[in-house]
Amino acid sequence: MKKRLDSINSPSDIKKLTIPELTSLSEEIRERLILTLSKTGGHLGPNLGVVELTLAMHYVFDTPTDKFVFDVSHQAYIHKLLTGRRERFETMRQPAGLNGFMMRSESEHDAYGAGHAGTALSAALGMAVARDLAGGKEHVVALAGDAAFTNGISFEALNNIADQTRRMIVVLNDNEWSIDRNVGAIARYLHKIVTNERVTHLHDSASRLLEKLGGKTALNVVRRAEEAAKGMLWPSVFFEEFGLTYYGPLDGHNLELLIETFQFLKTQDRPVLLHVITQKGRGFQPALDKQKKFHGLGPYDPETGETKSVGQPTYSEVFANTLVKLADGNDKVVAITAAMPNGTALDLFRPHHPQRYFDVGIAEEHAVIFAAGLATQGFKPFCAIYSTFLQRAFDPIVHDVCLQNLPVVFCMDRGGLSGDDGATHHGLFDISYLRSIPNIVHMVASDEDELADMLYTAMLHEGPSAIRYPRGTGPDVKLKAHPEAIPIGKAQVIQDGEDVAIFGLGALLPMAGELATELESRGHSTAVINPRFAKPLDREMVAKYAQKVSVMVTFEDHVLMGGFGSAVLEAISEMQFDVPVVRIGWPDRFIEHGKVDQLRARHGVSVEAALEKLEPYLKKANRSRLVTR
Amino acid sequence: MKKRLDSINSPSDIKKLTIPELTSLSEEIRERLILTLSKTGGHLGPNLGVVELTLAMHYVFDTPTDKFVFDVSHQAYIHKLLTGRRERFETMRQPAGLNGFMMRSESEHDAYGAGHAGTALSAALGMAVARDLAGGKEHVVALAGDAAFTNGISFEALNNIADQTRRMIVVLNDNEWSIDRNVGAIARYLHKIVTNERVTHLHDSASRLLEKLGGKTALNVVRRAEEAAKGMLWPSVFFEEFGLTYYGPLDGHNLELLIETFQFLKTQDRPVLLHVITQKGRGFQPALDKQKKFHGLGPYDPETGETKSVGQPTYSEVFANTLVKLADGNDKVVAITAAMPNGTALDLFRPHHPQRYFDVGIAEEHAVIFAAGLATQGFKPFCAIYSTFLQRAFDPIVHDVCLQNLPVVFCMDRGGLSGDDGATHHGLFDISYLRSIPNIVHMVASDEDELADMLYTAMLHEGPSAIRYPRGTGPDVKLKAHPEAIPIGKAQVIQDGEDVAIFGLGALLPMAGELATELESRGHSTAVINPRFAKPLDREMVAKYAQKVSVMVTFEDHVLMGGFGSAVLEAISEMQFDVPVVRIGWPDRFIEHGKVDQLRARHGVSVEAALEKLEPYLKKANRSRLVTR
Repeated sequence: MKKRLDSINSPSDIKKLTIPELTSLSEEIRERLILTLSKTGGHLGPNLGVVELTLAMHYVFDTPTDKFVFDVSHQAYIHKLLTGRRERFETMRQPAGLNGFMMRSESEHDAYGAGHAGTALSAALGMAVARDLAGGKEHVVALAGDAAFTNGISFEALNNIADQTRRMIVVLNDNEWSIDRNVGAIARYLHKIVTNERVTHLHDSASRLLEKLGGKTALNVVRRAEEAAKGMLWPSVFFEEFGLTYYGPLDGHNLELLIETFQFLKTQDRPVLLHVITQKGRGFQPALDKQKKFHGLGPYDPETGETKSVGQPTYSEVFANTLVKLADGNDKVVAITAAMPNGTALDLFRPHHPQRYFDVGIAEEHAVIFAAGLATQGFKPFCAIYSTFLQRAFDPIVHDVCLQNLPVVFCMDRGGLSGDDGATHHGLFDISYLRSIPNIVHMVASDEDELADMLYTAMLHEGPSAIRYPRGTGPDVKLKAHPEAIPIGKAQVIQDGEDVAIFGLGALLPMAGELATELESRGHSTAVINPRFAKPLDREMVAKYAQKVSVMVTFEDHVLMGGFGSAVLEAISEMQFDVPVVRIGWPDRFIEHGKVDQLRARHGVSVEAALEKLEPYLKKANRSRLVTR
Repeated sequence: MKKRLDSINSPSDIKKLTIPELTSLSEEIRERLILTLSKTGGHLGPNLGVVELTLAMHYVFDTPTDKFVFDVSHQAYIHKLLTGRRERFETMRQPAGLNGFMMRSESEHDAYGAGHAGTALSAALGMAVARDLAGGKEHVVALAGDAAFTNGISFEALNNIADQTRRMIVVLNDNEWSIDRNVGAIARYLHKIVTNERVTHLHDSASRLLEKLGGKTALNVVRRAEEAAKGMLWPSVFFEEFGLTYYGPLDGHNLELLIETFQFLKTQDRPVLLHVITQKGRGFQPALDKQKKFHGLGPYDPETGETKSVGQPTYSEVFANTLVKLADGNDKVVAITAAMPNGTALDLFRPHHPQRYFDVGIAEEHAVIFAAGLATQGFKPFCAIYSTFLQRAFDPIVHDVCLQNLPVVFCMDRGGLSGDDGATHHGLFDISYLRSIPNIVHMVASDEDELADMLYTAMLHEGPSAIRYPRGTGPDVKLKAHPEAIPIGKAQVIQDGEDVAIFGLGALLPMAGELATELESRGHSTAVINPRFAKPLDREMVAKYAQKVSVMVTFEDHVLMGGFGSAVLEAISEMQFDVPVVRIGWPDRFIEHGKVDQLRARHGVSVEAALEKLEPYLKKANRSRLVTR
């Protein structure tokens, strides 16, 4: 039987459907999500929660004229299914396929791209003000999860909305989870609203009212919705103080209620906030049972939800387990996460040292300044924040941590290319943005044991430091019984050589080894160095090889512009050496999503690219050898 | 007559004084502030507003055991006067003198340094949690202006405080101003509380109660204060929802009331927020009349408040006047400031295009994402944010603007060394942190007319761009009648030469000229280039000179690490040239406050330093000339 979903080629096809038809469509969508994502992986739980909400939004509003701005936009899969991308849905997160987030370049229905949290209200306000200035009539709808309200940008936007536009709709999609369960005062406040008896009662009676009322004239519908909305209105002082009229809480799986409410809100000439309660993972029992796991994951069994175990610890797990050990022996060690206990694996730390574990919400800036405050009092805070999200805290790193030379440790998970998630999640800038800051030590781990040593080194170090390690698993190196301190700023010679010196930073150390093998086979004596530190750079080591080799090579899982290779160029220039350097890293463009190996090959982060760039120098080296020997 | 102030050598000396003695001390302090700052310049208005507040805090609490965390900390002058720095007070903001902000390295009483807004609550929470973990008893008091509550970090902190500590005091110093008058919902909310009749009434009766009640036993005082506090308690739902018990509003100039309230709050085992109303500029009529001017300024007449006019437009004024013209001719041009209409001179833009002027509060991240939203709809937003404050928006620049390739223009005032304000305000990192981001154009203006041209160029450019210009005035170049577009990525040859090529970026172009004159006088044919673009670098120009000169020189008012000179090194390396480069810029350390010229000389940003570094290459060049000619 042909599915109804297969006849939806654009949002206009939805508008013809009746409520029962929409309801059956929502079931089809859930099926499609569960099946497709079981093969592609992705953000299953969040999308299962917003099926009805997305349908209702597209039923009432008209994209691309009306603008939808989704916070983070990992919950935009249904939106993608309904806006002409159904046939490509199985390519989600696959190389050359659909991106897992909204993307302006992918569809005119994607009004705004995202990947980091807390941006939707600000961007939507920009669009609303643009409309007001241009005299337009379109609607701007921002959809943000409750977790986005733990982020300061959402508040900065709230503080401005009522001053700057009279028409904008904020939908607060409340499922009480970010990736983990939400923390803080706002989460508690929302929970209080939702569980309040009077609200529950009003909500029920509003639903009953809707059921009872008949008739479908336009006026009637508006009046009915208004009644319903008023009935549900709860004096949510918090949002009202910001000048937004609050409606809710509303059952986010009741299509009829959602549609009528949106139709009512469309008529309002004031900024409104609609509080919608949804169930993350709805319709798939394994996702309901394991909220964290099914927030975002790789392929799984569509019946049982089971996933294949990798069988070796990830870098994140090595980090967390090591930190537990360090904290066992040092009561000044504390761990901080910005709403990522699962992703950073700090949920493994928490049970061991609950008093010294802090989840501060999606609040990277606060996390870093909070850490700085702790550090002034003799504590050793380890902030576990993905490389890409730490960008949020650049100023606190400069202004609070490094300027005061405080011993805060930044544990930068997902340093390097992240792969499937794409440009918003690649961690390709941390060397550039950190190494220009005085006082900071920047380490890059090349295997699990070195990560443990670096964590120990950072704990002993009396100033700020950052440790970068990749997503997923490493070479599966066994850890020593006790980590050892690494001398700050000292590189490690893996093998010595006379003609070429290769510096292979972090995850690309194996690539340096491969290149060395190839060069040795061609008769070039090749050194391989594990730099360990992007800052301070081991200038003695650079000098040692700059004196003797005819060419140096740097490998980094980072942009070339301002990165590790540039640090080597600077050192060579300052020490007045005269040796060419071939730098291998990511080019000056945003890198799409895909498989890491394919992307490396495509963008010249490879042994082949290095060989090609080396060719002119190797020829010269050969020539000079012919002359001198 | 010996002043009472001259007997205050540490906070313990304050604790012996009676209320009338404290009152007369506060008058002396105001006198001292007005007189000293008339010579040194500084943040007069904010400090005149917190004389009694600071006295009361030091009367009740015991620093350095108790911790004071001041937001921005430009209002810490009285704190400095009272904590052993009275005799050095006239050195405020002078070379080798006291810093204008709190600084941990300056005094044990400065628990936490700052210079950027919104950090106090987060840092104080870190200290409070550290105390709780260590089992300490000390008090942590965060003092933050109402403007700090337009910044998202304050909210991220508020969202965490009640969850993480049971004891912390937040003082909200409410004067309804940031530098300009505060904007947004929070400002309106606070104003509503303050002007509410019932509050005014309660406040008055609380004051009367205090006046009436006699007796001074400890118990009595506590009970009295409790009564007073309860009387003043206003159901400030906003802060209470965050789990902070709200007290206020309180007259911030009533010493007795302040002292008794702090004594009461000290006994509270819960996080509290005390809302204090102060008058910025109190006690100096010129400062009351001209709030913006006296927020922070240079020397003035201590009688009249008059300042000497510079007589030539500052870069900020050139920026604002040019933007008015651009907006006159293009209705898509909009201007955005993050609470700096005066500092950025956008207050000159506002009257011309009030609909297209946006002051979003101290909310740099929101400012940039709001701009991105506007840009998606065809607008050309110009975000005027100081280089150092734009660090706050690094992630939005990457994630919202550059990744989506949106035509937002960052007008980076105070790019380069800021001088008197010191390390928190120097704008020395923007080339490093911006040039690694794909898609962005980074321009640096060397004079006023070029700034106008660059603004025009940015308006025409279809992607993101940033323009850097220094604090204060430039070479006073007359502007063309109409700005002209500069080809993107094209440098300008000032003079050609054969032996040495000097790239003088922005404010250091004159230094490049001086060096050239010196080199020419020594017989070296020297080229001078105005690079104009840090990104994209003019590689053709680099290649042209790399082919012929024996050495290149780069000058930049920026850190050397990852800066413009590094971009030149990268280009030379990639194009496989072999020419040495001498890079002149700021070293890898935080630069203290002082006079720009002196600091340049001290840290090697000078013609002399360049000559010294050039010496080995010039010798070689001379030798090779002897050989070849």
